[in-house]
Amino acid sequence: MVQTFFIEEPLTYDGQQLTSLWAFRHLRLQGDSIVAFRGACHVRQEALVDLADHLDGAFIYSPDMLHFLAEHFESDLEKGVLRQRLLVTLAKEILEEILGIAVKRRGDDLFVAQKKLSVSIATVTPVSVMIHFGLNVKTEGVPVPAVGLGELGLSEGAVRDFATRLLAAYAAEMKEVWLARCKVRGVP
Amino acid sequence: MVQTFFIEEPLTYDGQQLTSLWAFRHLRLQGDSIVAFRGACHVRQEALVDLADHLDGAFIYSPDMLHFLAEHFESDLEKGVLRQRLLVTLAKEILEEILGIAVKRRGDDLFVAQKKLSVSIATVTPVSVMIHFGLNVKTEGVPVPAVGLGELGLSEGAVRDFATRLLAAYAAEMKEVWLARCKVRGVP
Amino acid sequence: MVQTFFIEEPLTYDGQQLTSLWAFRHLRLQGDSIVAFRGACHVRQEALVDLADHLDGAFIYSPDMLHFLAEHFESDLEKGVLRQRLLVTLAKEILEEILGIAVKRRGDDLFVAQKKLSVSIATVTPVSVMIHFGLNVKTEGVPVPAVGLGELGLSEGAVRDFATRLLAAYAAEMKEVWLARCKVRGVP
Amino acid sequence: MVQTFFIEEPLTYDGQQLTSLWAFRHLRLQGDSIVAFRGACHVRQEALVDLADHLDGAFIYSPDMLHFLAEHFESDLEKGVLRQRLLVTLAKEILEEILGIAVKRRGDDLFVAQKKLSVSIATVTPVSVMIHFGLNVKTEGVPVPAVGLGELGLSEGAVRDFATRLLAAYAAEMKEVWLARCKVRGVP
Amino acid sequence: MVQTFFIEEPLTYDGQQLTSLWAFRHLRLQGDSIVAFRGACHVRQEALVDLADHLDGAFIYSPDMLHFLAEHFESDLEKGVLRQRLLVTLAKEILEEILGIAVKRRGDDLFVAQKKLSVSIATVTPVSVMIHFGLNVKTEGVPVPAVGLGELGLSEGAVRDFATRLLAAYAAEMKEVWLARCKVRGVP
Amino acid sequence: MVQTFFIEEPLTYDGQQLTSLWAFRHLRLQGDSIVAFRGACHVRQEALVDLADHLDGAFIYSPDMLHFLAEHFESDLEKGVLRQRLLVTLAKEILEEILGIAVKRRGDDLFVAQKKLSVSIATVTPVSVMIHFGLNVKTEGVPVPAVGLGELGLSEGAVRDFATRLLAAYAAEMKEVWLARCKVRGVP
Repeated sequence: MVQTFFIEEPLTYDGQQLTSLWAFRHLRLQGDSIVAFRGACHVRQEALVDLADHLDGAFIYSPDMLHFLAEHFESDLEKGVLRQRLLVTLAKEILEEILGIAVKRRGDDLFVAQKKLSVSIATVTPVSVMIHFGLNVKTEGVPVPAVGLGELGLSEGAVRDFATRLLAAYAAEMKEVWLARCKVRGVP
Repeated sequence: MVQTFFIEEPLTYDGQQLTSLWAFRHLRLQGDSIVAFRGACHVRQEALVDLADHLDGAFIYSPDMLHFLAEHFESDLEKGVLRQRLLVTLAKEILEEILGIAVKRRGDDLFVAQKKLSVSIATVTPVSVMIHFGLNVKTEGVPVPAVGLGELGLSEGAVRDFATRLLAAYAAEMKEVWLARCKVRGVP
Repeated sequence: MVQTFFIEEPLTYDGQQLTSLWAFRHLRLQGDSIVAFRGACHVRQEALVDLADHLDGAFIYSPDMLHFLAEHFESDLEKGVLRQRLLVTLAKEILEEILGIAVKRRGDDLFVAQKKLSVSIATVTPVSVMIHFGLNVKTEGVPVPAVGLGELGLSEGAVRDFATRLLAAYAAEMKEVWLARCKVRGVP
Repeated sequence: MVQTFFIEEPLTYDGQQLTSLWAFRHLRLQGDSIVAFRGACHVRQEALVDLADHLDGAFIYSPDMLHFLAEHFESDLEKGVLRQRLLVTLAKEILEEILGIAVKRRGDDLFVAQKKLSVSIATVTPVSVMIHFGLNVKTEGVPVPAVGLGELGLSEGAVRDFATRLLAAYAAEMKEVWLARCKVRGVP
Repeated sequence: MVQTFFIEEPLTYDGQQLTSLWAFRHLRLQGDSIVAFRGACHVRQEALVDLADHLDGAFIYSPDMLHFLAEHFESDLEKGVLRQRLLVTLAKEILEEILGIAVKRRGDDLFVAQKKLSVSIATVTPVSVMIHFGLNVKTEGVPVPAVGLGELGLSEGAVRDFATRLLAAYAAEMKEVWLARCKVRGVP
Repeated sequence: MVQTFFIEEPLTYDGQQLTSLWAFRHLRLQGDSIVAFRGACHVRQEALVDLADHLDGAFIYSPDMLHFLAEHFESDLEKGVLRQRLLVTLAKEILEEILGIAVKRRGDDLFVAQKKLSVSIATVTPVSVMIHFGLNVKTEGVPVPAVGLGELGLSEGAVRDFATRLLAAYAAEMKEVWLARCKVRGVP
């Protein structure tokens, strides 16, 4: 059971949120969860957990993003990456339906017309696996060619509706994945 | 490294292929693999590993399908289901690009205009996790409202091209998932 | 989330129930579960999964037992044995409260005044770990010095109430164990 | 094989002992172990690993406790919590026998007549899972309604005897749990 | 703790011994173990668990072998293969010391002067991982160029001494491997 | 697939290299790897991850060593120790062939004529298991009776050849271990 929550207050994502039990400490959500919030994104180079980015001297910035932060209390990081890909896939599927345009997924990134819509990372804590997934709403100052949900025509309310829908879709998909595992017999 | 192979000879899928080391025994592929082949699909009730279907007295039939059979030498069935969902997602993404129409994914099923395009199952063997994913090419006699790749306009050659492309896409996605797991540091 | 269910119809336990997905196949409970039922117990030597008993030429018999059958969709058998011990402990704690007498636990067995009240086993299936725990209600023909819930003064209704209470207690304990794992940070 | 040791010298528990390889570094016990010692308990808020307590601004204090510190070289925290519950259960069973009064277990806490007798936590280190379990001997200054082994009538020697007995019982139970896992065949 | 045992009575190895809990069922050894015995080796094609051999139509035969059968109650087959390689390595090291000649290891095989001295396989059961390792004593009828311990000059007593020494060395190495894992702290 | 690399520039090993993703951060090797380099070894007491050494007040020093640093993206430390033993075994086998003298392995140490040739440790990071294995080339100032590859007659070029050969042998052995796990069926 993945619990879901949308935080109404804006919150800047600076990488510190990618710490175990963040949702428990701030929202008292105990167990697997995915939460969403709006706010700027500014992860300095030294806070990057993606060492490929870190080594390239990159940083992550967006003036306004829709953030998703998921935590699963298990320890297999590769499995966490698989969950992350499904989260990104669900975002793509929902956005295509809402916007009526093609959204391209490459690994854990979304693009619209070759412009980067999102950032994402999955990593491991001593007690869990965590995923951050952020979609640009606005793109001033983003260090790569980017596109945002706002420019794509989503109103503030529509961004929030999308968030709610993705939260529910992710929780439902994860539940269904678990149930799929609980209905098959083994084979030789 | 997921190895890929397309079997040129037609082969009826009857559920027996969902057995450990099938690709090793028949193709000498040793290690993780995904293979594709064409042929009818006929899984009798007693051979179903999906007990939900089994209990419903269901059977699986299609006169002509494009089959994918994947094997990963690991033991976490839920992780296998996550891989399966990505395989189905990739099929959807590629088909949408080829056909220019919307393909709807619900869990591990694909639909076009509410008609069922595919069947899929993931299960566990004593030494591995396995996935079967079959897409209708023709649909005479399929026991549910169904659609096939042929009716959607794919020629024989196009079906084969699609197969080759999905094999490559799945292998690439799985490789990338692994690499994503090998570039992040842990967080507290 | 461990689902619970009490089967009203009597059912003889002969060891066949210790098979993966029993609760799904018979009750459509999908996911972790514990179910209870009343009925005789007759496990012939060749059906014993406890090889220590099997080698001793033992069999398990009781004319009337209260049975519990739990399934957890995970693969660590030792962890299943730990869960089993807690199930037996909870039965002891509840019975002591109901009966006001001392119930002695030795491993996975319960005794009252040196007489055996219960049998239990935990084992592994290709997709799950399973526990059987049976408490004698009557003891005619039991091959060891035994005592039953009936002789201890529990009426038919009281046996059922005990069953309901133990089902709930086990589900609650397992939930709490999970939550306890979801509230601590790691240490160096 | 869980090794056991009683440390004769008093030792204040301040949370630092909940660190991997404590028993190896201080007692040269290599491998799974449980050690006991007497001493005050003072865990400041910032040293709490239970974030539920931490968030409540709680601290843990007792002027005199009997402490148990267990370490298992494995990584499944939920399994560690299951072991912890059995440790607490064993303490309850032994105390009831020694004292002839009812000791109530709620999760990982023990109570006598609604007063709290113990504190406990299980967590994970990079190389192991650890359990702390402390039973009040005296209760002056304990921040919740509490009871101690001294007030319950245990002499200094009796506290030590209880410690020795619980150490042995825990090691025996863990051994038996392992052996139970090594005597069953799998089922379908 | 790996228990060791040498079975004095001759016993033909036909592959049936590679079944979970063999040492428990026949010797009442409960837990990880390695046992040794002397006897012919005849594994028919259909009993081969090595599908590479099976597919080649191979069978395994030797008129007289020294057999080792190890069982570890864990589920990671690759880890079992690593243990197997160390068992084979220890055999090589001890034989070189006893015989004063070079013994060549290639994977899980031993050779003397290009002649095959041994056969070995590791596989998984529902409850454990198992290893068979057999060294030729005599070689009449062996289907590949082979050499035996007898031809290398080992007397009956020396074969038995070697067996005893390898049993002890394997148990010691496995214990030391475990202890090595119980003395290091984690790193970032 | 274990990637291999020989770093031409000398590099002092001070324990900091035993950190996750070292090869990725310095060489952009992504995934399992083993790298070799030459240089002094100086691990101060406080940097020791082997707490047995640490507690003995030991430090590790050599003026010139051939170092191997392996990383596997998995989390079972005991499995890492098994891999380490095979790495040390391979070094022994290759050196014996090159030098024509007996090299003695005791656990993870190599000796020539009772003199210590090597040091080694395996430990765990948040995302991987790592192995350091260093062989003395020169021995001035080594705090225990020691021998070096130089004194054993290996020229600079021969040391490098040995390094290259061990890198390849380790990668090949690990690949073969994996393949051995991918060719067997399970047994009951």
